[in-house]
Amino acid sequence: MSKVVVAVDCMGGDHGPEVTVPSALAAVDADSDLSIVLVGLSDAVSGALKAAGRKESERLRVLHAPEVVTMDEAPAGALRNKKKSSMRVAINLVKSGEAHACISAGNTGALMATSRFVLKTLSGIERPAIGGVLPTMKGRTYMLDLGANVDCTPMQLLQFGIMGASLAGALDHIDSPSVGLLNIGVEDIKGNDTVKQAAELLRASGLNFYGNVEGDDIYKGTVDVIVCDGFVGNVALKTSEGLAQMLGGMLRREVERTWLTRLSCLSALPVMKSFKRSVDHRRYNGASLLGLHGVVVKSHGSADSFAFGFALRRAVEEVRSGLSARIGERVNELQRGAA
Amino acid sequence: MSKVVVAVDCMGGDHGPEVTVPSALAAVDADSDLSIVLVGLSDAVSGALKAAGRKESERLRVLHAPEVVTMDEAPAGALRNKKKSSMRVAINLVKSGEAHACISAGNTGALMATSRFVLKTLSGIERPAIGGVLPTMKGRTYMLDLGANVDCTPMQLLQFGIMGASLAGALDHIDSPSVGLLNIGVEDIKGNDTVKQAAELLRASGLNFYGNVEGDDIYKGTVDVIVCDGFVGNVALKTSEGLAQMLGGMLRREVERTWLTRLSCLSALPVMKSFKRSVDHRRYNGASLLGLHGVVVKSHGSADSFAFGFALRRAVEEVRSGLSARIGERVNELQRGAA
Repeated sequence: MSKVVVAVDCMGGDHGPEVTVPSALAAVDADSDLSIVLVGLSDAVSGALKAAGRKESERLRVLHAPEVVTMDEAPAGALRNKKKSSMRVAINLVKSGEAHACISAGNTGALMATSRFVLKTLSGIERPAIGGVLPTMKGRTYMLDLGANVDCTPMQLLQFGIMGASLAGALDHIDSPSVGLLNIGVEDIKGNDTVKQAAELLRASGLNFYGNVEGDDIYKGTVDVIVCDGFVGNVALKTSEGLAQMLGGMLRREVERTWLTRLSCLSALPVMKSFKRSVDHRRYNGASLLGLHGVVVKSHGSADSFAFGFALRRAVEEVRSGLSARIGERVNELQRGAA
Repeated sequence: MSKVVVAVDCMGGDHGPEVTVPSALAAVDADSDLSIVLVGLSDAVSGALKAAGRKESERLRVLHAPEVVTMDEAPAGALRNKKKSSMRVAINLVKSGEAHACISAGNTGALMATSRFVLKTLSGIERPAIGGVLPTMKGRTYMLDLGANVDCTPMQLLQFGIMGASLAGALDHIDSPSVGLLNIGVEDIKGNDTVKQAAELLRASGLNFYGNVEGDDIYKGTVDVIVCDGFVGNVALKTSEGLAQMLGGMLRREVERTWLTRLSCLSALPVMKSFKRSVDHRRYNGASLLGLHGVVVKSHGSADSFAFGFALRRAVEEVRSGLSARIGERVNELQRGAA
């Protein structure tokens, strides 16, 4: 496999090096063509390396960055005042070509603002978007935007469709991924003006446009890619997180209600565990910042090292599949078509 | 308890009289102060009555309506061309004062358009909204709008807050229900301009405004009432339906995978059933059309008679709690406050 270098912002997320470093170690061990640059406060990063009984090597370099972007910092402030942050230094490595991709579990707004400023947006893309992957009854589906853009024009929604189709094509090797537009009904007359115009653009785009889909189609797996503005996408994602947590909590409560209920569920434990594994959201960790010159992946802030590893592997896959170039080509094709 | 008359659109929904009539029978049997007018094609309605071994009585009247609004009919078409539909006739009974409330499992758009045309919107309310109730980790929460209004002004979102607070106050007897504004972050700077301005209006309104909430707060039960535009609300609701279905399906699949997994889960069946009951969405069936002169409740189209009964009881509760008047008063208070 092709050699890939990933810059890891070790300081980001709720847990920092404690999670990011062990996860990076597991990743280099599992993939002999992967090198990682661990970016962060060198004491903290080296400490985490030492705690794991490891040291720097050719494929595992530590790069000191003296500042840290906090989770609640305003994106513009982080961009202006934290030029030596682990996040910024990691993104700089992608810009300079020393790394192919960057991953961070840090402040999403700051990561997007900094990536956009440093790496620049691909020609033909007005606004980068955040694309995630969700489990469905049939497999998995890609959804964007998940929160980078609260107001979107029809043209931007079309561009999300292009980026989403490129993402599904690259990661799931689908030739012509089906693209659905998230709406409140399947009929053409449904939705607001923006969505109606976006449907027309998508229909004329040459993408494999399925038409409107509704919220329940996300988990039905009706399409490979779901396009929506970042407000709606973010609400849908977080609503799902909340519902899954509530259902999990209620199931646990029922099981643990009395010694009798506990006992009666003992023999069912393997089935429950298998169910839990099959819906484990950690396997879907990692959102892609799409539409940039370079691969940037955002891990959930609360990710543990198992979850962070999935996001890290996502970054590697995106590099190996040439995702950024694929998006650039698709945009160009469309622009030539429209000209 | 006070006497209540409910007009039931027997023809609406996926199942029609087969579901609506038995459900109405159970409701009158359980509440001696409730009378029901069964509106629909008299043959079909009388047939369903007969099948249940019952006949008309003082508290159970059949009213013939020769037309039926179909589920996929355009609201404007239904309003113009189906003046003798069961839906329209049922709403007319509320207008004339012969019924206190109307319930239908039929076409949502047609129900809203017809209710608005016949009953008129309360003074001070620009647009009626659809309010639903959802289970949470702490109890339940009311959410609106769930799909009537795809684009909303800040003022309309404020009015949704007033209506939602009235609904929670009326049904759950909460003195000053907390109201949250659905957004993509809790900080004031998050969201689009509409949401930011709505937050300012809500903060100055005298309502118990909690501030911004995120998608996962819906099921955490962070607030009593969640306000959002109908596009976002509809997507959040349907996404939840889809996720719950997927998780239920996956759990079933794990249990039924082999004879061994089935066997190992046998003793856990009571716990699983208890869990299923505690998350049974049928208990939350019934969305309220709010902001009208009169009570109108929409049942899910696919509701069975158990679910339809919950929506029917909701209508009765709304009448007994004087919901429409409560909303009117709150709007007036606010207008006086602003003047």
